[in-house]
Amino acid sequence: MSNELDFVIRHADVVTASDRFSCDIGIRDGRVAMLGQGLPDAPRELDASGMLVLPGGVDGHCHLDQPMPDGLRMADDFLSGTRSALCGGTTTVIPFAAQAKGQSLQAAVDDYHSRAEGRALIDYGFHLIVADPTPHVLAEELPRLIRNGYTSFKVYMTYDDLKLDDRQMLDVLTVAREHGALVMVHAENSDCIGWLTERLLGKGLHAPHAHALARPAVVEREATHRAIAFAELVDVPILIVHVSGADAIEQIRWGQSRGLPILAETCPQYMYLTADDLGHGEYEGAKCVCSPPPRDPANQQAVWKALRQGVFSLVSSDHAPFSYDDPQGKKPGGKEVSFDHIPNGIPGLETRLPLLFKGVKEGRISLHRFVELTSLAPAKLYGLYPRKGTIAVGADADIVVWDPEKRVTIANASLHHAVDYTPYEGIEVTGWPRHCFSRGELLVEDGRLLNVKSGRGRFLPAGKPNLE
Amino acid sequence: MSNELDFVIRHADVVTASDRFSCDIGIRDGRVAMLGQGLPDAPRELDASGMLVLPGGVDGHCHLDQPMPDGLRMADDFLSGTRSALCGGTTTVIPFAAQAKGQSLQAAVDDYHSRAEGRALIDYGFHLIVADPTPHVLAEELPRLIRNGYTSFKVYMTYDDLKLDDRQMLDVLTVAREHGALVMVHAENSDCIGWLTERLLGKGLHAPHAHALARPAVVEREATHRAIAFAELVDVPILIVHVSGADAIEQIRWGQSRGLPILAETCPQYMYLTADDLGHGEYEGAKCVCSPPPRDPANQQAVWKALRQGVFSLVSSDHAPFSYDDPQGKKPGGKEVSFDHIPNGIPGLETRLPLLFKGVKEGRISLHRFVELTSLAPAKLYGLYPRKGTIAVGADADIVVWDPEKRVTIANASLHHAVDYTPYEGIEVTGWPRHCFSRGELLVEDGRLLNVKSGRGRFLPAGKPNLE
Amino acid sequence: MSNELDFVIRHADVVTASDRFSCDIGIRDGRVAMLGQGLPDAPRELDASGMLVLPGGVDGHCHLDQPMPDGLRMADDFLSGTRSALCGGTTTVIPFAAQAKGQSLQAAVDDYHSRAEGRALIDYGFHLIVADPTPHVLAEELPRLIRNGYTSFKVYMTYDDLKLDDRQMLDVLTVAREHGALVMVHAENSDCIGWLTERLLGKGLHAPHAHALARPAVVEREATHRAIAFAELVDVPILIVHVSGADAIEQIRWGQSRGLPILAETCPQYMYLTADDLGHGEYEGAKCVCSPPPRDPANQQAVWKALRQGVFSLVSSDHAPFSYDDPQGKKPGGKEVSFDHIPNGIPGLETRLPLLFKGVKEGRISLHRFVELTSLAPAKLYGLYPRKGTIAVGADADIVVWDPEKRVTIANASLHHAVDYTPYEGIEVTGWPRHCFSRGELLVEDGRLLNVKSGRGRFLPAGKPNLE
Amino acid sequence: MSNELDFVIRHADVVTASDRFSCDIGIRDGRVAMLGQGLPDAPRELDASGMLVLPGGVDGHCHLDQPMPDGLRMADDFLSGTRSALCGGTTTVIPFAAQAKGQSLQAAVDDYHSRAEGRALIDYGFHLIVADPTPHVLAEELPRLIRNGYTSFKVYMTYDDLKLDDRQMLDVLTVAREHGALVMVHAENSDCIGWLTERLLGKGLHAPHAHALARPAVVEREATHRAIAFAELVDVPILIVHVSGADAIEQIRWGQSRGLPILAETCPQYMYLTADDLGHGEYEGAKCVCSPPPRDPANQQAVWKALRQGVFSLVSSDHAPFSYDDPQGKKPGGKEVSFDHIPNGIPGLETRLPLLFKGVKEGRISLHRFVELTSLAPAKLYGLYPRKGTIAVGADADIVVWDPEKRVTIANASLHHAVDYTPYEGIEVTGWPRHCFSRGELLVEDGRLLNVKSGRGRFLPAGKPNLE
Repeated sequence: MSNELDFVIRHADVVTASDRFSCDIGIRDGRVAMLGQGLPDAPRELDASGMLVLPGGVDGHCHLDQPMPDGLRMADDFLSGTRSALCGGTTTVIPFAAQAKGQSLQAAVDDYHSRAEGRALIDYGFHLIVADPTPHVLAEELPRLIRNGYTSFKVYMTYDDLKLDDRQMLDVLTVAREHGALVMVHAENSDCIGWLTERLLGKGLHAPHAHALARPAVVEREATHRAIAFAELVDVPILIVHVSGADAIEQIRWGQSRGLPILAETCPQYMYLTADDLGHGEYEGAKCVCSPPPRDPANQQAVWKALRQGVFSLVSSDHAPFSYDDPQGKKPGGKEVSFDHIPNGIPGLETRLPLLFKGVKEGRISLHRFVELTSLAPAKLYGLYPRKGTIAVGADADIVVWDPEKRVTIANASLHHAVDYTPYEGIEVTGWPRHCFSRGELLVEDGRLLNVKSGRGRFLPAGKPNLE
Repeated sequence: MSNELDFVIRHADVVTASDRFSCDIGIRDGRVAMLGQGLPDAPRELDASGMLVLPGGVDGHCHLDQPMPDGLRMADDFLSGTRSALCGGTTTVIPFAAQAKGQSLQAAVDDYHSRAEGRALIDYGFHLIVADPTPHVLAEELPRLIRNGYTSFKVYMTYDDLKLDDRQMLDVLTVAREHGALVMVHAENSDCIGWLTERLLGKGLHAPHAHALARPAVVEREATHRAIAFAELVDVPILIVHVSGADAIEQIRWGQSRGLPILAETCPQYMYLTADDLGHGEYEGAKCVCSPPPRDPANQQAVWKALRQGVFSLVSSDHAPFSYDDPQGKKPGGKEVSFDHIPNGIPGLETRLPLLFKGVKEGRISLHRFVELTSLAPAKLYGLYPRKGTIAVGADADIVVWDPEKRVTIANASLHHAVDYTPYEGIEVTGWPRHCFSRGELLVEDGRLLNVKSGRGRFLPAGKPNLE
Repeated sequence: MSNELDFVIRHADVVTASDRFSCDIGIRDGRVAMLGQGLPDAPRELDASGMLVLPGGVDGHCHLDQPMPDGLRMADDFLSGTRSALCGGTTTVIPFAAQAKGQSLQAAVDDYHSRAEGRALIDYGFHLIVADPTPHVLAEELPRLIRNGYTSFKVYMTYDDLKLDDRQMLDVLTVAREHGALVMVHAENSDCIGWLTERLLGKGLHAPHAHALARPAVVEREATHRAIAFAELVDVPILIVHVSGADAIEQIRWGQSRGLPILAETCPQYMYLTADDLGHGEYEGAKCVCSPPPRDPANQQAVWKALRQGVFSLVSSDHAPFSYDDPQGKKPGGKEVSFDHIPNGIPGLETRLPLLFKGVKEGRISLHRFVELTSLAPAKLYGLYPRKGTIAVGADADIVVWDPEKRVTIANASLHHAVDYTPYEGIEVTGWPRHCFSRGELLVEDGRLLNVKSGRGRFLPAGKPNLE
Repeated sequence: MSNELDFVIRHADVVTASDRFSCDIGIRDGRVAMLGQGLPDAPRELDASGMLVLPGGVDGHCHLDQPMPDGLRMADDFLSGTRSALCGGTTTVIPFAAQAKGQSLQAAVDDYHSRAEGRALIDYGFHLIVADPTPHVLAEELPRLIRNGYTSFKVYMTYDDLKLDDRQMLDVLTVAREHGALVMVHAENSDCIGWLTERLLGKGLHAPHAHALARPAVVEREATHRAIAFAELVDVPILIVHVSGADAIEQIRWGQSRGLPILAETCPQYMYLTADDLGHGEYEGAKCVCSPPPRDPANQQAVWKALRQGVFSLVSSDHAPFSYDDPQGKKPGGKEVSFDHIPNGIPGLETRLPLLFKGVKEGRISLHRFVELTSLAPAKLYGLYPRKGTIAVGADADIVVWDPEKRVTIANASLHHAVDYTPYEGIEVTGWPRHCFSRGELLVEDGRLLNVKSGRGRFLPAGKPNLE
């Protein structure tokens, strides 16, 4: 009796990170129970003929309802954020429980749980942001949190309210090494940025496009090399996040070819935007202000090439949702401000998979690599595998039935986040999720979000990072 | 009725190139029909508890019963060769139909089929060796053979009876590009070897150890660079086979990082043997005479490192079986001959998987990478996927139930080939195949070869190389 | 009495490869006898105020009156060639005594002496071209010729009438190693060129611009890597001549950074011409047909960068004089021929120094590096130092008083060679020789060639290469 | 009358950075007035037959009588320091006027002049150490000091009392760029050193050998990369001083091959000492405590190779004289202290040239390169050329008559500094200065220091760095 299936997806053309096979998928109790041809009938069925059937996306880098200083506020909370993710084919998100200076890390985690509960539509894990690694945090809180399922932290080498100095970096890396966690690094040199910013402002350059001039590639490259040196010194893996182009890639490749445990992530903005999108003086460039800034077409090519060659392990959105026409967003206090006061970040949860799939259609990466970069790798790295990241017996039935031929022109009007713009407005893609399952439950059908109960998403305590 | 399973493997801890999951495996008509927990009963069953369940190995580079000049003879024909492969966990072999100078390629293929039929125990494909690319071969035979399922060729840059000059290389690569085949390259500079050999003999150096002196790393590196240049010029992928160490790896890595389509293979001899195994004057060193020669411990480490980093796509045996105490083998005409007259090659079909699995146990590569290198990648590259290379619904049930804790000291007495020695005698490994299935048929049980019908193995016409 | 000076150059602003100093230069018996301020009076004097005083140029790579096959004839003999060199500030030339296949090397040398004697205006050494390294040549002729002052040879990896195979290359390098000579290598892959040429002709591409398509950078890079491998194998220095761009430079730099004894030369054509100068179909592109072909602006920049960084040891002209409107030159038999039948080479003896000096004016290289590249380095490498290559006590008084501010638009009408064109027509340079001395004799005064006796130039037996 | 020579060195075998010639050297008014064969008689003469005649050494990096914190005191003042330099063949020193935090830079310079005057035996310039780049220092003092002949500054990335943060580095580099000065960088990551030190002390490791563990190569490499990034950002040349081995060399070579203006210096300690010289627990290892620490034999080879290949521009001593058995030296307060409290530095002014000349004798570098590294390059880089750095008409007659065959076993008893040990005790060298001239005055004769007047040495205002 308990052997009966709840749902069968028929004629599935299943693609995983390494395999492709045709079968029916039998779901029971939210999990994949059976793969086979001609599975027995089930109460609910869906025919996937002509579609690709993929593991749901895992977005390993996004920001939702993160407490902000200076009267800023993220436009997306866990409800709108997970709704948007889901409609874009992502069935797991891992946002950040961010410690403020002076705050206990546990308090940050507790607060963040309260923001997620009752709102999330899909499952979620937490990364930590360690901004104040006091002796207590290092000796007590971090080890306990790791044991409790928070096995990845992010550290910043820039931003005044977040950045760690070199010594603090070494301290945090040491805890990660001793307790088996993975450290994500935002690598830009803070002093260089401050120095350049001051000079740009001194020359009267205030507009958003100066953001890119204040954070040139050399500033990212330097911090990347430094972070690699720290990983070597402590002998612990690190993951360089949101890598923007050739200079940082060169350092990462160099570290990898020396045999150092250096992982790296990139994001769609580094494949689809350039510094030109920051404008040439007009304030609307603020929409594309993120850090590191997007570079130029040659750097976009370098990112695609590195994706193909295995330099990057994963592609995330770095979704950081600030509305443009919003006094708590890109116009702080309701004003057009100097570039260094524009909140950093762009929205991207929903468009991540379609934008990367465009690279599949254009022959830049294979379909298997697409699945690996967007689902399997983040699931493994962040300790959610084998529940997430694949379609295999026993895994959560987080499944996307993907229409590989659907042509879509990206438009903010069609997206499901709460941000009032998308930086990808007008880009044409081919390939979009048609049906999405989370733990066996069909939540998106024929591209339409069904009536989903807020808070059905569950927290996922993470296991140890799997870096094999 | 036809829906009933023929065989169920219970409690399988299945490992593929990217996934690991626990389930029962249901086999019907030689294929994997169903994966699930609690599959229905079948006439035959096997409990795999405590074992790993892996796709059967695919040996993408081995020599069996290949016609030889000068009165030499390979010790293994398709019967003994496939028996040995099978007992080592390999369920598919791809040996070479070798064209002699002046011979039609089709004739070579026809002859080779006659050697395989009635003998092979497991399935097999054929690579071609193109030794005489006449206009007819290039314009007629190769395109037709590619269409007929022979989609990979090997070319030699050395050996007088096989080698192509640079222009012939370009011609063959052009056919591969136009018709979608994959070219495997033996990269050593023939003139350098001849020149060095003459000088070594002139100094009275005749013993096997001089073989390594006649083929130093620089000779392999040069030809590797040259082959990469040809691939760039013709704009076609190539696969550099049996790469021996750091120098050639450096060139391959350089080509790959430029974005050139350069693939590479290595073999266990470059991880486990060194030039010292060629002896210091004694003739027994002839047992380890192969080309390129094994190098030194630093080069072994470079090979492991490159395996881990993805420089190599696959690990093959380059099994080339000549008995030591054999006038048709390592002692041509019954005599100890000068190093340059010793037939090149070592046996290795049966030991390939255990030797590479030792690297898994020692933490050098992951279990998934092991499966990829030994099974999935050769199946894809040589057009046999998805029938071979994975455990997935619809794939051939070529399955190895692997005992990861079995400790074995390699001894020729226990091996199943017809060669009178193994170069790995005495090496201790942990991990050995326990049960092996070919197309759903249990052929090895508890490490014992069952009574298998000669000739049950079938020829596999290859599809286009899958280089994604 | 014999202590009196023959000539004093007053107020000389002397520049050598490392130093710059102001003094009078006293000349006696054709040599620099004294450097000092306020030297005593001499019968002849010259005031060099406002000028630079440089050691005369040494052109380490040029072709004059070299016997040619197929009814071709070089336009410059030793008279017109050395006249042109002299007027361009070069006071020593080192052309090639070229062995034909089947010819004795000594015979080639004897013949070449007879072409030089009675004609040369300035001093000259000979390189050998070894095109037929028979056992007799290797064992007898080369060692004897080295002893007699012919200490550098050129070998070709392409051109049917000249090229050596890999084994012959190793043989010649071995003689160089054993007897202390320097081997110059023309590095292009002959088979690739032939293969590409055949395909280009097959597509109906006959015009000069196809010359560049037949010899792409990869063809040069491959041969460069191969030559480096041979130098490593034999453990002997080599000098890669006329390097055209980034790809070959990358290999040379790689060899040098490994510590291999790899030297390299480039020529003005790789800084000032591009493949566009071969035209887009019109036959006049034949004027710029040389091998390797000129590349593109990015490669020009790579050449300048490598010059600055010390990758190159010297800059030569590779002067190979064929008139354009000449049945023995660029129009063989009076016809416009297919690109593969156009004689290779361009004239450049007279323009070498001004073209490189333009790089000094533009801040690309220093004045000292200019002197090193054009004079000191070839003098040392080819065994002519300390007689040639510097201004120092005891050196031959081969001195150029150089006007650093003279603006010249290069025009063939003003040049002194016998070729009917210059590929640099119309290029503006600043800096030109004003007065030129050879062995203390003032031969060019105020830019005007004085009445110089044909045959006053002497043969310079070369000492061992100085590669310090 | 004024035309008569004061001194003639007869039969000089003169070696400069690029040339070698034989002549007499005529000296007048402290300068080289004439070079020639058979110069007229002079009141004083010296026969240099059988010797090499070299430009006197310029030590571009040494510390003399530098004010120290914490009761420490350098053993050498300007008298003993210049005496030692002179006896080792160095005729110009450039020590450091070091700013203390809070101090005016001009005050530091004034103080340092008062320490030099009346004591120095040979000529000297000053580098500045900028430890407190206040707005006043940046805007007023540095520009004025540059104009007044202080054109090089050193900045530290480590040492608590000296180090600049990244932003200060950028500020100082900007001043250098705008006013044409050269910045020398001590590149080690301060935080890493502090972090490692704390952990080593925590494990009870106090002995001198822990000094090397606290400053591993990765710490130097990271700071080197960072300094290169700053030079790129500001677009200004920098000189990385006292480079210790392969890791930092790799970064420098990388910067140079990108075309960045990165110069580098190494010191004899990195060719002759290893971390083993810091002992294995015994306090005497304190004698070799310097930063970066000496590495191992493989790194020594890397340094020699980089010297040969032009990665390094100069070799200095980094003489930092602390006596071993001295409460103001290596035993602060008279005690054996923890490794992090041992004053850093070793003496080396007198042994610099002989130790590098050993490399000439062993064929590692040429004689010309020796002269360039030890004399010409520092003279040019630090704005003292053409007065110093060569033997040419008009240059100061700072000349060393060098005995290339003199065998010496280095012993502190024979040296002339005030330090009570040399780290090179017992090393055998061949080649030692025999006679030394400063501005035409013979100060060392037959290896014996003559009666030289203290304070005869003069301050040399430096011109702009010559980086050609």
